[in-house]
Amino acid sequence: MARKDNPTAAKIDAQAQAIHERIKRKQKPQMKLPIRSLSNVKYQPRAGYFQLRGNNKVRTLTVSTVRTFAQTLKMLAMSKGLIRSGRNSTKREAYYQAYNWGQAAFASMDESDTVMDDAEAMLGVNREQLHFRADEHGGAVAGELIVVDRDRRTGKLLDIDCTKFGSGAYSIPAVVEDLRFKTAAKFILAIETKGMFERLVEEDFYDKHHCILVSMGGVPSRACRRFVRRLADDKKLPVYVFTDGDPYGYFNIYRTLKVGSGNAAHLNEFFCVPQARFIGVTPDDIEQYKLPTHPLKDVDIKRAHDAMKNDPFIRHYKAWQSAIEKMLKMGVRVEQQALAKHGLDFVAKTYLPRKLKQVKNFLP
Amino acid sequence: MARKDNPTAAKIDAQAQAIHERIKRKQKPQMKLPIRSLSNVKYQPRAGYFQLRGNNKVRTLTVSTVRTFAQTLKMLAMSKGLIRSGRNSTKREAYYQAYNWGQAAFASMDESDTVMDDAEAMLGVNREQLHFRADEHGGAVAGELIVVDRDRRTGKLLDIDCTKFGSGAYSIPAVVEDLRFKTAAKFILAIETKGMFERLVEEDFYDKHHCILVSMGGVPSRACRRFVRRLADDKKLPVYVFTDGDPYGYFNIYRTLKVGSGNAAHLNEFFCVPQARFIGVTPDDIEQYKLPTHPLKDVDIKRAHDAMKNDPFIRHYKAWQSAIEKMLKMGVRVEQQALAKHGLDFVAKTYLPRKLKQVKNFLP
Repeated sequence: MARKDNPTAAKIDAQAQAIHERIKRKQKPQMKLPIRSLSNVKYQPRAGYFQLRGNNKVRTLTVSTVRTFAQTLKMLAMSKGLIRSGRNSTKREAYYQAYNWGQAAFASMDESDTVMDDAEAMLGVNREQLHFRADEHGGAVAGELIVVDRDRRTGKLLDIDCTKFGSGAYSIPAVVEDLRFKTAAKFILAIETKGMFERLVEEDFYDKHHCILVSMGGVPSRACRRFVRRLADDKKLPVYVFTDGDPYGYFNIYRTLKVGSGNAAHLNEFFCVPQARFIGVTPDDIEQYKLPTHPLKDVDIKRAHDAMKNDPFIRHYKAWQSAIEKMLKMGVRVEQQALAKHGLDFVAKTYLPRKLKQVKNFLP
Repeated sequence: MARKDNPTAAKIDAQAQAIHERIKRKQKPQMKLPIRSLSNVKYQPRAGYFQLRGNNKVRTLTVSTVRTFAQTLKMLAMSKGLIRSGRNSTKREAYYQAYNWGQAAFASMDESDTVMDDAEAMLGVNREQLHFRADEHGGAVAGELIVVDRDRRTGKLLDIDCTKFGSGAYSIPAVVEDLRFKTAAKFILAIETKGMFERLVEEDFYDKHHCILVSMGGVPSRACRRFVRRLADDKKLPVYVFTDGDPYGYFNIYRTLKVGSGNAAHLNEFFCVPQARFIGVTPDDIEQYKLPTHPLKDVDIKRAHDAMKNDPFIRHYKAWQSAIEKMLKMGVRVEQQALAKHGLDFVAKTYLPRKLKQVKNFLP
């Protein structure tokens, strides 16, 4: 909520100042932007996420760049206004507010999204710090956690106790930058499906194991990733990830949560969760628990081969390569609900407790 | 949570009893199921939702039906076990639990879903009453509402105050049958996108207008529809629906919420919200507020023509026919965020308040 002395506002000012200086010196104004593609990405376990290699492009004001140039500056001005008023604008709302920019108005929402990405990358901040937010569901939370937010009307701090939602849950907001946390939990369990999340709530899992349950609802949204990251950093909590045993669960969900993605590498610093480790379901589990499976689809096989060849994260870890090879050899995928074959409470009473006794065996 | 004297368990018993009786009399056992298709559906405003016309099919035990017959009975037995233990099973978990049914095991999840639909239709109950639940997000709630749930561990009632979540929200659980409500709110506003929901939270809308905000997140899930319906019935609250101004918003979201859908007509009684009325965005709003638009896509145009011709709900209401005709004539659709052209707070400070002064003008 900091409106004065906001570091993002200060960066915007500095950028504007630099452009103004060049104009005063009769030089063409320019902006420097990191190149956003897989070729400009590296993985180092110490950093823990996909990082930019540092290649930049310089955009100089010319006849052909004038529109984008103007849009980027006006987008930064809009951001500064939002920071000043304490408001947040969705990407869509930003697009429509720009409707009044005359010749600088956007031709499409794709265009305004790209300019927003440029603004993030240029300043080295994330969209949420610019007070823009995505229009997506953020995930659900239950367990031994108090989220400290602020009541907008009174300005007073608000303790939100995530053990007090009954069968419901706390819904993560789109912007989580200003939240604070209180917890004595021992770990965070990030779960692929809302169904499995509700199973564990119903089995009193968080009570018995002193943890925080997070439903990602498929590939975690930015808000969900940022929430887990901030909470894990702040409270020094390990993060265990529980997905289906298939390439979608391994790469699109787990790998994205842990190290980020290639085409948004300028953001991974904020949105990755390097402390995440993979609890299951693994190809080994299929054998050990005789789980029902489904044949791998062609798209699964292709995705697995691609990852073995091109994904810097998978290529870094022998353990992941073995797991993927085993999956390909078995030719099957498994859903986390398959554990219900042994009874509805098997996952909470047997599978997860056994796993938690051998954290060192989790996939990295 | 009622486990004894559960009316659904009683219906299951009665069904089983009838089949047992026929077997004892050396007759072939049979089940009676309503036909589930648009041709077996009617719309009467007094009932308020798509209703079955009453055509049934009878499934008699034969060589060709024996597997489905056995599956349906075993599914009912599973449901009774769930009711007894106070547990709920997702559709996926049910499928995997049936893995141990030998020859009656399901070949695919589609097969188990169909048998579950049959079980619902046969007993005239909904899946949640059978203690099965969908694996889907349920929507988010903020505003002047206290949800009364039960703490599973202590059995004590739990007041969940939906004004106390700061920028977050209450996430609706998959099963809402046992929730109770306390509220002095004047209406429920059901909103298409989470982004617009968060806009209204940020503008203190529910405080100023004494209402309950519900984010549907696109087409509302069963849990979300049932939640709004139970809350509206229980507290005699009007329900206003706020979506994009396009066929998807009008039919897939609003019409489904209000009267249900054709292919699940045996459920509409539970999941529709007949008291819903449409606040916007309407084609008239585009003119009045000079809103930015997008051209209708081919699929929009086709959907609109289909609805004018075949949808019993649209055919019933002249006002909707005029609105759809106007949209087709203008050839454009509009997003709810387009109101941001006039400023981020325009929707909360001007558009909705003006609308709320003329509730009688809402589309039916």
